[in-house]
Formats: sequence, structure tokens, C-alpha cells
Amino acid sequence: MAEEMMNNKQIILKQYVEGYPKESDMEFKNSIIKLNVQEGSNVVILKNLYLSCDPYMRNRMSKLEGSYIQSFTPGYPITGYGVSKVLKSGDSNFQEGDLVWGMTGWEEHTSIVTTTQSMFKIDHDKDVPLSYYTGILGMPGVTAYAGFNEVCSPKKGETVFVSAASGAVGQLVGQFAKMLGCYVVGSAGNKQKVDMLKTKFGFDEAFNYKEEQDLDAALKRYFPDGIDIYFENVGGKMLDAVLVNMKLHGRIAVCGMISQYNLDKTEGVHNLFCLIAKRIRMEGFLVFDYYHLYPKYLEMIIPQIKAGNIVYVEDIAEGFESAPSALVGLFSGLNVGKQVVMISCE
Amino acid sequence: MAEEMMNNKQIILKQYVEGYPKESDMEFKNSIIKLNVQEGSNVVILKNLYLSCDPYMRNRMSKLEGSYIQSFTPGYPITGYGVSKVLKSGDSNFQEGDLVWGMTGWEEHTSIVTTTQSMFKIDHDKDVPLSYYTGILGMPGVTAYAGFNEVCSPKKGETVFVSAASGAVGQLVGQFAKMLGCYVVGSAGNKQKVDMLKTKFGFDEAFNYKEEQDLDAALKRYFPDGIDIYFENVGGKMLDAVLVNMKLHGRIAVCGMISQYNLDKTEGVHNLFCLIAKRIRMEGFLVFDYYHLYPKYLEMIIPQIKAGNIVYVEDIAEGFESAPSALVGLFSGLNVGKQVVMISCE
Repeated sequence: MAEEMMNNKQIILKQYVEGYPKESDMEFKNSIIKLNVQEGSNVVILKNLYLSCDPYMRNRMSKLEGSYIQSFTPGYPITGYGVSKVLKSGDSNFQEGDLVWGMTGWEEHTSIVTTTQSMFKIDHDKDVPLSYYTGILGMPGVTAYAGFNEVCSPKKGETVFVSAASGAVGQLVGQFAKMLGCYVVGSAGNKQKVDMLKTKFGFDEAFNYKEEQDLDAALKRYFPDGIDIYFENVGGKMLDAVLVNMKLHGRIAVCGMISQYNLDKTEGVHNLFCLIAKRIRMEGFLVFDYYHLYPKYLEMIIPQIKAGNIVYVEDIAEGFESAPSALVGLFSGLNVGKQVVMISCE
Repeated sequence: MAEEMMNNKQIILKQYVEGYPKESDMEFKNSIIKLNVQEGSNVVILKNLYLSCDPYMRNRMSKLEGSYIQSFTPGYPITGYGVSKVLKSGDSNFQEGDLVWGMTGWEEHTSIVTTTQSMFKIDHDKDVPLSYYTGILGMPGVTAYAGFNEVCSPKKGETVFVSAASGAVGQLVGQFAKMLGCYVVGSAGNKQKVDMLKTKFGFDEAFNYKEEQDLDAALKRYFPDGIDIYFENVGGKMLDAVLVNMKLHGRIAVCGMISQYNLDKTEGVHNLFCLIAKRIRMEGFLVFDYYHLYPKYLEMIIPQIKAGNIVYVEDIAEGFESAPSALVGLFSGLNVGKQVVMISCE
């Protein structure tokens, strides 16, 4: 059998990153990919359609030791969640033409061993955008669903605060909390996002944290009787302000701390004594522990999307070339909604 | 009926305290107490026998707003847990001569309305010291029992770290963990206490945190594979070092943060991202929520004490006059074991 080759543009991490990532920390590289796969090899060749830009990727740009994730390897393509189409398959579970989502490379085509990567087959309902599998129908969706329902132990009528509330996860947490009958307030970093929280996602209130001199006062304004549930996406000063505004027996689900990822030394959190005085449970979680809920979640969420009860806002950067700036923009909050890169619509 | 009066020496908080409390923040006052009580008034007159010195009392010396406890009132006697004898009773549930424990005043005699204070009747087994009702058989005992069993979700074979491990609560947590079959390490602030952890309480290992240049390295020495359970009594730098040494799905029961109580501004905790990476549950608790377990706890613990399976070390200051220095000493770790003040042996 003749070897079939194809040009394959890649995005390479040049070196480990310190501080805020810059586009120049990455570079494009032209490489060549072999398209032949051996039957039973469990190798599949993917054509990448959508790449997902997610906050946790910042951590992988640093030199990590003993973390829950591995660093990217300088000189090699970045990896991340994406939606792809199977071009060639050496695994009988995947057929040519299948749509899948899971970890893939930041490159036009990726060769993956299916036994070492989670890859979910997409049963594509044409009424929902395929890109949603990087967001509401993918990792961020399960994160929001499990984080809110499993970690926060929410009850109808409780008060819920979500930071980074217009992001890939936050916008869903807010909507799930409203569906349950909670009072929901979100914070975001500009007027457009704040407006969107109220008009698009149905949050009861929202505020721009950058315009608040005093986060404690802002929280007291929206939660005069305190916060039952805090869905934590940012860390640092916001967490400190939240701690003093929690109610007795409150719960904090720690999903992310994006405000800290680019700092050489993280901010100290000073108000942890509140955990005792208010008997607060603060629990970190990772989506990996909850993928068993994915089928149940999909069954619930797809009809809700189609009925218009749950909406999802994406910020889609077009073209492979736009990927580095899209990823970098995430860390200064340039994205409005879930940041996606569209390489090819199919 | 003639009014019966008695001299009553009291310990008064002179003013709110900033920084480390000093003996001079308190003063003795001679007052007079009326011994008459009306039948059905629910007033009882207590003769105080033992006063308990507990870390949470530091918080009450400050001007608090909206805390779980009230500040002491400057100009009035300090209050705290104690063991007392009923001298007069206007409540048919308590008889003259009954021994009780609960909140009382730092004074020789206290007049209390039983309906507004929890007061537990002591069924005194002469084989256990009466002073134990300020410790292992009282509030610190329930704290250790509920904190370890209910908050830490411990399992046989897990690794447990206890800070302030020779204190009123820590020494019990370590022994409960050993009884369950855990590997237990404790930290304390001098050689005598460290020795006691190993020789008296059966901890597997113990170290003097004041002699460790690098708490992270110390923890790695004793927990090469990480910590499943941290019973938090101190806060600050120790918590930061523990966070990076926790195992996946570890649990931190936050009982106290004594290292922070005398600081104008608490130390910042920097490693909270570990909560996410390691899926850690960190939960604050207060004994008030667990007093329903007290009867069950007593039933378990008294035979264990009598069989010598559980030991309890007290540091008993003798005489009412020694109370201020005993309390102050707690905050520089002068006490070896549970700090008690004996006013009268009965």
C-alpha cells in the first residue's frame, strides 16, 4: 500500500510560559502527516474542525511537576479539547466520517491512539451546532452540570453566586441554578458580558467586578442575607470577599481560579476562618471524575437547548491562524462566551 | 425569706484585645452574688469547680460583628466552658448538689438561666476525673469525635496529619485515628509535647514545627505518598504546606486556626489551587452542630478511658488566681495538654 501523506499545519509551544501568555509563545509549523493506519492498531487520523480554548490550558503552558495534568511539551503542538472528523480509522469502534470530541492536537490533522485518549462519538443532531461539543455538549457542559448538582448540593430558593459567569462554564451554572429556582447573581469583566448575564441567561443580577472598588460591598448589595452557594472560577480577592458573605452551611465548588494562573506568586486568601465560623464546605473538583454522568446529561440538555430553555453563547474565532490570539485573549477576558476556534466547518 | 448573699470573685475583661492577649487585659473584681432563687424561675446558682481555657476564647476577646459567637463584654466577667456544682436551683431538672458542665462565668459562683444556656448534667463516675468534663468528656471531646468521624470521612489505613496535636482536641483526634487503623503524624511546638505524642498518645510520628525550616519538606518526610486527612487546628503557613502534600480526594476538617487569632491581618493562604487539582474537600465545622452525638460519644469513650485505651493529658492550673495566666499561656503554647483551671476540687 502506498504511503499517503498530507501537509499538516501545527501550533507549537515555543517554550514554557511565565506570566501572561503571548501569541509569540506559540509558532506555526508546517509538518507532514501519514494518513495510513493499520487495521486493529487503534490509531485514528482526525481532521480537526473546532478547537476549544479553556482556562486550564494556561497551567499546561508552565513547567508542572506532580500536577493532575501534564505540561505541554515545548517544540510540540499544543493539545486540547476539540471536535474532529475521523479520516482514517484502525479502531473498529470508529468509522471514517464519524464525528468525535475529545483531546486532540492544535493542528489541522491529528493521529491519535484511541486506547490512551477519551474520545466521545458525536451523534450529531443538526438542530444543535457542532461547535457545542467544545462547550455545552462537551467538557465545560459536564463541568457545570456536575459541579453545580453534585458538588454544590443546591436546593430551590437558595442564593447562588457565579464568578466568570459569562464563560464557558459560568453561563451554564447560572442557567442550571435558575432552572432549579435559585436566586442567581454573576460577575463578569465588562458591560457587554454583564448585560448578557441578565438579558440572555436570565441571571437575577450581575455586576462588573472591575468597576467595584469594594467587592465585599458589591456582594452585600446583591446578597443582603448572604450566599448559600459560590461557584468559584476566579480565586484571589473575589474568594476572600465571598468568604465573609457566605451563609451558615454554605458550599463553595472550586472549579477554577483563573485570576491566579498568570501570577508568579498567587494572591493570599485571608478569610478562611469563615469556613469554621460558618461551617462552610469548600470542595475542589475536576470534570474527569464525572464523565460517567455524560450520557444522562446529554439526554437532559439537548431537549432543553432545542426548546430554547437553555442558551449558549460562543465566541468563535475563524480559521486555524486565529487560534493563538483566541487562546491568549481568554486570559484577559477578551472572549464573550465560550471561546472556540473554527478550523473547518466540516 | 431573708436574702442570702455571698462574696464572689470575678475575672473581668478590661477592654477588647488586639494582638496577643496579656494578663493585664483582665482584672479581678470582688462582687457579691445573691443566692436566693425562685422556684420555677429556671435560675440556678453554680459553684464553679473547673474552668476550661479554649482557643476560641481569643476571638471573643475582640470586638466581633456578625460572628458565630459574641464578644465578651468589657467590664463584665469572661465566660467559658466549666464544670460546676449546683448550689441553688429554680429549675426542677437540676437539684442542689448536681454536677454540671456547660457555659459558665469566670467567677467563683455564677447565676445562670438554664433555658438560655446548654447545661449538661454529669453522671459522675469516680474512676474518671471530674475535670475531664472540660476536655475529653466535654466540648473538646465532642469536637474531636465529630470532627474526625463526621467531617473527615476516615477509612482504615489512611494517612492522617494533626496540627496542634497535643492540645485538648488534637490528642484525641490522633488516638481516634489510631484506633481506626490510620497512620498518624502530629505537630506540636516543643520537644516535651512531641515526645508525648509518640510515647503517650501512640502517634506514629511527630515533629516540632518550630524546628522545621521548611514545613513542606517536613511533611514530605513523614508522608512520602501524601496526606489523606488533615485535621486543621492552626491555619496559615502550615495549611499552605499541607495543601501541596494532600493526596487526591483528601479531606481537611477545619477545626481551628490558632496561629492566626492574634494577628492583626491573617496570613494569606496561597496554595488553594490544590483543592481543584487534588479534588480536596475542606470543611469547617463547629461542635454546636454535633451535640446530638454526645450521649453516643460518652457511651463509647468512658469504657475506653477506664480500660486505658484512650488517655488524656491535662495541664491543670491551681486556684482561681491562676486563670488569666493560664488562658494567656494557651496562645503561646505554654500548656502541655488540655489547659484547665481548678478553682475548687468540689
